[in-house]
Amino acid sequence: MPLSNADKKRLEEKLRQIDQDTSMSLGYPCNFNYNYQELFPFLDYSLNNIGDPYVSPSYKINSLEFEREVLQFFAGLTRAPKDNWWGYVTNGSTEGNLYGLYLARELYPEGIVYFSQHTHYSVSKNLHFLNMRHIMIRSQDNGEIDYDDLRETIKIRRDCPPIIFANIGTTMTEAKDDLSRIREIMEDLAMENWYIHSDAALCGAYAAFLEPRPAWDFADGADSLSISGHKFIGSPIPSGIVLAKRRNVERIAHSVAYIGSMDTTISGSRNGFTPLMLWHAVRTLGREGLKQRLAHSLVIARYAVEAFNKAGIPAWRNPNAITVVLPEPSREVRDKWQLASTNGFSHIMCMPHLTESVVDDLVSDITQTEDRQVCES
Amino acid sequence: MPLSNADKKRLEEKLRQIDQDTSMSLGYPCNFNYNYQELFPFLDYSLNNIGDPYVSPSYKINSLEFEREVLQFFAGLTRAPKDNWWGYVTNGSTEGNLYGLYLARELYPEGIVYFSQHTHYSVSKNLHFLNMRHIMIRSQDNGEIDYDDLRETIKIRRDCPPIIFANIGTTMTEAKDDLSRIREIMEDLAMENWYIHSDAALCGAYAAFLEPRPAWDFADGADSLSISGHKFIGSPIPSGIVLAKRRNVERIAHSVAYIGSMDTTISGSRNGFTPLMLWHAVRTLGREGLKQRLAHSLVIARYAVEAFNKAGIPAWRNPNAITVVLPEPSREVRDKWQLASTNGFSHIMCMPHLTESVVDDLVSDITQTEDRQVCES
Repeated sequence: MPLSNADKKRLEEKLRQIDQDTSMSLGYPCNFNYNYQELFPFLDYSLNNIGDPYVSPSYKINSLEFEREVLQFFAGLTRAPKDNWWGYVTNGSTEGNLYGLYLARELYPEGIVYFSQHTHYSVSKNLHFLNMRHIMIRSQDNGEIDYDDLRETIKIRRDCPPIIFANIGTTMTEAKDDLSRIREIMEDLAMENWYIHSDAALCGAYAAFLEPRPAWDFADGADSLSISGHKFIGSPIPSGIVLAKRRNVERIAHSVAYIGSMDTTISGSRNGFTPLMLWHAVRTLGREGLKQRLAHSLVIARYAVEAFNKAGIPAWRNPNAITVVLPEPSREVRDKWQLASTNGFSHIMCMPHLTESVVDDLVSDITQTEDRQVCES
Repeated sequence: MPLSNADKKRLEEKLRQIDQDTSMSLGYPCNFNYNYQELFPFLDYSLNNIGDPYVSPSYKINSLEFEREVLQFFAGLTRAPKDNWWGYVTNGSTEGNLYGLYLARELYPEGIVYFSQHTHYSVSKNLHFLNMRHIMIRSQDNGEIDYDDLRETIKIRRDCPPIIFANIGTTMTEAKDDLSRIREIMEDLAMENWYIHSDAALCGAYAAFLEPRPAWDFADGADSLSISGHKFIGSPIPSGIVLAKRRNVERIAHSVAYIGSMDTTISGSRNGFTPLMLWHAVRTLGREGLKQRLAHSLVIARYAVEAFNKAGIPAWRNPNAITVVLPEPSREVRDKWQLASTNGFSHIMCMPHLTESVVDDLVSDITQTEDRQVCES
């Protein structure tokens, strides 16, 4: 039976509304600049990338070879150790972070997880889920982890292997924890065993191109790493990449094989369409395209801070960040532009599709509401 | 930059191959009878159903109202307790099962999980992940849990709340554990607290229409329930529905709120496209459409058993099952028809798209290979 006319109308109306909302969305780190239409014919088939991307299942309707090419691209971007990495395309960074923490727990059941207070709320949820001991570390004002607090906290628990959950771009201020400073602390305290997971949900797609290069990837000391596909790259369905040192995954594979499964992924049935989209992005953009997008985003971010400041709004951003932080505007403005707000602050994300004129519109909206509020009071 | 011609060719070739593989896929429980093309325009937008489906996020590009209608439909199908249920659209049944077990663990941290040996391997993986005590129970020959073994095993551990992971359709033989018999055991042993999760990945979409009605849903005693969207219903992307008694979820919500998050889902960013597809399916099929599909599948399953038996192949199926079990055919035949194989058995799934002539082709392939093997030996 086809959809009723009333239902068709609802879909049309919804699509129209989404189109409008998309033009007024500044607060979320989603790039809208993509076109995957040439992949739509695949949606007439039941793609399923069941299990490990490197093991061929008997179900042939999958996109595993495209997934492996996507992983190879990101292994290059994150300087993964040659012939000693493994990964898969996830449903988003929450799954990638969960996977990294799971690996760490299997490796160090007695480990304690350390993460800064600016860390995304999903991480506390993950830790609760995995039943892992954890301690929250103070953040500096810019959102970066407080290295002194980290050092002092680890120092009095040197019998427990530290598991560091590092933010390579916090949600609110895009602060990057510095992996070389974290490793210095470990070495200075003569720790033998530790684990570092980089949550590079946002910045993982471009951190490799920043100058100066932040310390964030495998070569800088990460043991596992999670990157979102639907953020800086952009996709209509949440997706992500998780990468890890292969010898750590083999440890899990061992215990998983013992319980009768060779599948080390978190889901069993896996989305076969998102790897095709990421493959399309990687093939059409490549490193050069990502670099150009980053350059655009940085220009807009610089422009936005200046425009806000000129209008008397004390906006700021971390060095090389595409996230611009500002005092929380009125509810009216926040609703209109879909700005999230925490502790009195909001942010706008200077994603690859953002233009200067949209920034101007927001600035003028903020100043106009403020003027009106002054008049009314 | 557009895709190169070589890459375009690769996609075309892949699509052609997938089309061919789809016509030769008998071993997986995926219905191929769907058409979601009128939804494709939504894939030009970054849909994201962030967090709880009943809480409106500041990010407006979502399909939450469609998701809620899908959940409402399945709450009806599973006789969820009025005004005391909650749920969300998942990335597949592994996530739904993980969620049910997580709820059970939060409710009964001292609980022991019991599940039959025919249970899908992902469950052991989930239990490992969640760090839950568990005991595997013997299966009967047809794949159903051995109720005597279950009773005896619980009996000697009456101080620990039992958490029953019930299969409403095992992967291999579509055996259904009987919730009323399980509840009888609990009541007979004078247990005060227990939890039942129904893994209805396959059968959840049609169990309500079977005659006699199996004991499988909320009214029969389930506390949570997981159903796949990409199986009997069919979707090009893995999806599922998890439903649970709301008061149990509120317990989790409480502890999750304590760690600073109101989001009780497992993922944070959630797919907004799969709820649209499920909504499309629910609106075009409805209960009547699902019933008709079931009737077709049962006819084909009956036909398949007869056709195999006539050809001297001892195939069989559980009462009212759409899964037909047969002795593992040769590797050649298994590869050709994408049949999985465990312990010397394979199965074919009589999904809504399957026709009698395809069954005939398989039967003739099996008998021909066997004849050839007899001649060659």
